[in-house]
Amino acid sequence: MFQQYDVIVVGAGHAGCEAAAAAANMGSKVLLVTMNMQTIAQMSCNPAMGGIAKGQIVREVDALGGYSGIVSDASMIQFRMLNRSKGPAMWSPRTQNDRMLFAIKWREMLEATPNVDFYQDMVKGLLVDGSKVTGVVTGMGHEIRSKAVVLTSGTFLNGVIHIGEKRLGGGRVAERAAEGITEQLVSLGFESDRLKTGTPPRVDARSLDYTKMEEQKGDDEIVGFSYLDTPKPKEQRSCWITYTSSEVHDILKTGFDRSPMYTGRIEGTGPRYCPSIEDKINRFAERDRHQLFVEPEGWNTAEIYVNGFSTSLPEEVQYDALRRVPGFENVRFYRPGYAIEYDYFPPTQLQYSLETKGLQNLYFAGQINGTTGYEEAACQGLMAGINAHLKIRGEAPLVLKRSDAYIGVLIDDLISKGTQEPYRMFTSRAEFRTLLRQDNADLRLTELSYRLGLATEERMQRMLRKRTEVEEIKGYFSQTQLDPAEINPYFEGVGSAALTEKQKLEKIILRPNVGLEAIMESVPKVGEGLSRFQPESREQAEIQVKYQVYIDKERELVQRMSQMESLAIPEHFDYTRIVSLGIEAREKLGRIRPQTLGQASRISGINPSDIQILMVYMGR
Amino acid sequence: MFQQYDVIVVGAGHAGCEAAAAAANMGSKVLLVTMNMQTIAQMSCNPAMGGIAKGQIVREVDALGGYSGIVSDASMIQFRMLNRSKGPAMWSPRTQNDRMLFAIKWREMLEATPNVDFYQDMVKGLLVDGSKVTGVVTGMGHEIRSKAVVLTSGTFLNGVIHIGEKRLGGGRVAERAAEGITEQLVSLGFESDRLKTGTPPRVDARSLDYTKMEEQKGDDEIVGFSYLDTPKPKEQRSCWITYTSSEVHDILKTGFDRSPMYTGRIEGTGPRYCPSIEDKINRFAERDRHQLFVEPEGWNTAEIYVNGFSTSLPEEVQYDALRRVPGFENVRFYRPGYAIEYDYFPPTQLQYSLETKGLQNLYFAGQINGTTGYEEAACQGLMAGINAHLKIRGEAPLVLKRSDAYIGVLIDDLISKGTQEPYRMFTSRAEFRTLLRQDNADLRLTELSYRLGLATEERMQRMLRKRTEVEEIKGYFSQTQLDPAEINPYFEGVGSAALTEKQKLEKIILRPNVGLEAIMESVPKVGEGLSRFQPESREQAEIQVKYQVYIDKERELVQRMSQMESLAIPEHFDYTRIVSLGIEAREKLGRIRPQTLGQASRISGINPSDIQILMVYMGR
Ligand SMILES: Cc1cc2nc3c(=O)[nH]c(=O)nc-3n(C[C@H](O)[C@H](O)[C@H](O)COP(=O)(O)OP(=O)(O)OC[C@H]3O[C@@H](n4cnc5c(N)ncnc54)[C@H](O)[C@@H]3O)c2cc1C
Ligand SMILES: Cc1cc2nc3c(=O)[nH]c(=O)nc-3n(C[C@H](O)[C@H](O)[C@H](O)COP(=O)(O)OP(=O)(O)OC[C@H]3O[C@@H](n4cnc5c(N)ncnc54)[C@H](O)[C@@H]3O)c2cc1C
Repeated sequence: MFQQYDVIVVGAGHAGCEAAAAAANMGSKVLLVTMNMQTIAQMSCNPAMGGIAKGQIVREVDALGGYSGIVSDASMIQFRMLNRSKGPAMWSPRTQNDRMLFAIKWREMLEATPNVDFYQDMVKGLLVDGSKVTGVVTGMGHEIRSKAVVLTSGTFLNGVIHIGEKRLGGGRVAERAAEGITEQLVSLGFESDRLKTGTPPRVDARSLDYTKMEEQKGDDEIVGFSYLDTPKPKEQRSCWITYTSSEVHDILKTGFDRSPMYTGRIEGTGPRYCPSIEDKINRFAERDRHQLFVEPEGWNTAEIYVNGFSTSLPEEVQYDALRRVPGFENVRFYRPGYAIEYDYFPPTQLQYSLETKGLQNLYFAGQINGTTGYEEAACQGLMAGINAHLKIRGEAPLVLKRSDAYIGVLIDDLISKGTQEPYRMFTSRAEFRTLLRQDNADLRLTELSYRLGLATEERMQRMLRKRTEVEEIKGYFSQTQLDPAEINPYFEGVGSAALTEKQKLEKIILRPNVGLEAIMESVPKVGEGLSRFQPESREQAEIQVKYQVYIDKERELVQRMSQMESLAIPEHFDYTRIVSLGIEAREKLGRIRPQTLGQASRISGINPSDIQILMVYMGR
Repeated sequence: MFQQYDVIVVGAGHAGCEAAAAAANMGSKVLLVTMNMQTIAQMSCNPAMGGIAKGQIVREVDALGGYSGIVSDASMIQFRMLNRSKGPAMWSPRTQNDRMLFAIKWREMLEATPNVDFYQDMVKGLLVDGSKVTGVVTGMGHEIRSKAVVLTSGTFLNGVIHIGEKRLGGGRVAERAAEGITEQLVSLGFESDRLKTGTPPRVDARSLDYTKMEEQKGDDEIVGFSYLDTPKPKEQRSCWITYTSSEVHDILKTGFDRSPMYTGRIEGTGPRYCPSIEDKINRFAERDRHQLFVEPEGWNTAEIYVNGFSTSLPEEVQYDALRRVPGFENVRFYRPGYAIEYDYFPPTQLQYSLETKGLQNLYFAGQINGTTGYEEAACQGLMAGINAHLKIRGEAPLVLKRSDAYIGVLIDDLISKGTQEPYRMFTSRAEFRTLLRQDNADLRLTELSYRLGLATEERMQRMLRKRTEVEEIKGYFSQTQLDPAEINPYFEGVGSAALTEKQKLEKIILRPNVGLEAIMESVPKVGEGLSRFQPESREQAEIQVKYQVYIDKERELVQRMSQMESLAIPEHFDYTRIVSLGIEAREKLGRIRPQTLGQASRISGINPSDIQILMVYMGR
């Protein structure tokens, strides 16, 4: 029944969908096998994309030609650029999404992608020939052959759901768990372990009192994720903010003795950075309240996602506690919060291409690698899809460096350090975060992807236009001088010192509180001079000029680091002397004795800061 | 956590959704408990509503204030009025629907209904106090109390899925089955049995060759289901027709020895009137081809529903056979066809209100009663919702008569005769089908529902306007005479004999081939005289006048039948003499010895025709 495929992708979650799209768009014949065609690209947890560091990832996925940005833009009900008050390295786009629309749009885009075939079935095992994967075996008994397999099983491998003392098998509530794959891979020498994650209760919007909460509106200007010209919604939906209290915490504590986490019934480690409310109460005992975001699940549904209240306590306890939260006095539950435990494969078993070391042509992406989050999953899927395609064409893999993209940071962290708890991205994980901004992902990545045949001509042309415009605008900045009389009224308005003599625009915009768009409005000459450029290009030029010093510093560091890569470490280097290294680092370096700094940096447990210390000791 | 509800509805399929909406709109506090909030109003099988006899039911549900018509109108991708070439009793509206939109729209409407609360959980049992149901127990262990319970579990009770020799538990593919309820009810003395139904494979539109099929477009004029003014789509999607062949049949036969139906692995009886393709081949061995309808699943999806090819043969056989169908040479499967076996409760255990005889305040509706089809389920749900509400208010139940509505026919058939195979509606089941037209469901039913507090004021006003207009138009028909010169050109055009003297319009429209709208166009006087009326009213008046003779005859029969209801049968009446009665009827009547004709008519196995024969023998 089935042709031989180039790539089979197992699972149509965020990772699987991107993997299928990427490999297919590069020219592979792809089969996407998933348990339920009705749940393609289902958001398991919060109805939102992006946010701090995650928003940057979605932008990178988009710049590379992935679909997550387009889908998120098409299904958004609210847009916010987080951290606008901080420097642009911290700006992070985030959308609130219509959960159903998100899934529908993903499916539509995949179905409109030539080369992606679909099949609904549960994969139970892999076809293996020697050290190579050659296809999959399904629950219906089909053996489907392919040159490469991308496994993106999310939380489904031997998934077990916990609510209080209740346990049920399942990959998400009301969905089946997947069995067979872990067992087979373990028998082939793979190591697997358990992780857990949780989700909050969903409640009925009609039972809430919003007058007791703070409204959080969307931004006036919707930037969106995609560098393509996606349509933006005309109106937006608000979210709402409310708080727990010590009363709420006290009630929650009454359930701790029946909590699957504290009674040891869950073995898997939970996400440190997306903790359950019971975790938060425990770990931050000094705090007498936590913020809750009350998020609508779509344009027209009454379902509400209670962000910040993830829990696996017994349902009555969830309910009793939530009822004490302002605005929730009469809350009605749609479904309770729960935790899920599942198998993952410690990602140190992967190569940088996301191909497994244990089986050739088998790729892992997403939650199966110990990450958490749609964005983290999506970008791994994209990379696995690209690399599966390249591999079967006999080409070198695409490996993004830590200085190229958050995606590079993520994969490097996973492969070189592994993870013992669900891994999520933060800006602090990226040493070069001034380079890895949300505004320049296209400039960083689109050309790379275009060369590989993934990013479309349209993307490439848009990026080139932006790049050209940015140079032209920067030229204008350096050539244009403003008279004090022209600019001082504006300076006065923003409380900036008056000019006494002419000054170049490139100097003027270095001042704090000074913004290009405002200058354009205030100084007609500048307004006219720059009006022909796209706002996006103007913003980009402004950022590049304003933050040039920091950007240059990071670029230099990147360069130094890359020289270090091949720098030899003396054979009998004595690590024990370097007390500023952590104990773990000293111990591992002494034992493994890497030959180059590059090799040292890839040892699990060795941080970028350890490498920088070594560089200092080696006289750099 | 839960308040005491008036009505708990178990299951959010077509029956459950209508039940919840009806009871809530009448003023009951309703809780809709369903296994998965993501699958509310899922169409399990074909993405279509209505059709022959079923379209009439949807119109009736709408006239009574149910939601199915509105939802179908909002999600249609194609509309056709079937049987337009026959008399209006046979006209049957049918929509092709966007499967996802249908479910989304239902959920939105339910969420916008005050008094309907939601809860995601599996119901495992009922709370019973003596002979009365008092609530439900859920898988999560909640005991939720209510005054009445409506059980609408569809194909989920102990569901088992079959594909060839493979069996898996589930209520639909990739969904869990529900356990516990059957067992409890049986222990309380209920009788349960097994039925089965099937669904065809879903395939990838991009793999089909439409040039080899016949296109079937939607009607130019979209009538829709709802009597309210629902928006209609601007464009429509086509379906396509193709055929099996003896080659296809031969391939299918190669799988018969592995078919769950022929090897006895399925115990349940399948639907005679929605047979699987293997059934069709078997039962109609003389036919060397069967029609297949190739139906898109939505506006933008590539998924195709292969209507007419329902099967549970091994998947390779499904595939090999389908590939021999013109246009399907390169077909790719999304998901195979399958059969499902499930528990139902023979509906003779119900009262006419759909309340069970075994447990007070417990109602059954939908597939659980042995029916098949969304429309059959929806109308039962509506009636159960209405009657659950009326019961707890201490009011008499609403029972529709066979002469009121197809709904009356359906429920009467179920309760008085039971069913040993999945029951679906046909026009031939209704003795009074000239009365029960799709065009007059509002005139028949809206007032009844309005009086009960269900149909809205808007519905009532619209119906009253239509009724008034119809009378006015009929008045115009009887007062307006046309000169030969006025009308003869039109008659000539349609090949109808010329008039030689003036004639009244009410006479003129009795002619075959003559239509009111055409006369209006041809005779300016008539066009102007009737232009102020709604087209719907004009059509209604025309039908009433044109078919008056048949309508009157049926009305008279209804009257005679209702007099018969209380007609006493002589105590020692000798049924054995009446050879025109079937053997079963003679045997049963002789044994049970009903006291009135009405009672006789309600005995299982006694048909309306038996009653008519008895009437003749009793001198009527
Ligand atoms: C209860 C819950 C709570 C979560 N909470 C958070 C949170 O608080 N914060 C956060 O950032 N992230 C959270 N997540 C994680 C987030 O949902 C995932 O990180 C993300 O969805 C992972 O994407 P994925 O593509 O790896 O897998 P998934 O989105 O899980 O998709 C996996 C897909 O593969 C299919 N599949 C699996 N196995 C098979 C098989 N054998 N054969 C065929 N198909 C298969 C499944 O049907 C599914 O479509 C949560 C997830 C769950 C379930
Ligand atoms: C495979 C298949 C093929 C079919 N083929 C045809 C066909 O060819 N022709 C035709 O006319 N009809 C067909 N049908 C039938 C049609 O789908 C049903 O008649 C119709 O959907 C019945 O509506 P319902 O409301 O009774 O149940 P369903 O639509 O089945 O809905 C039942 C609902 O109840 C929920 N539920 C069940 N048990 C519980 C519980 N214990 N607790 C909580 N929730 C529960 C389920 O999750 C579901 O939402 C088919 C159905 C299936 C599954």
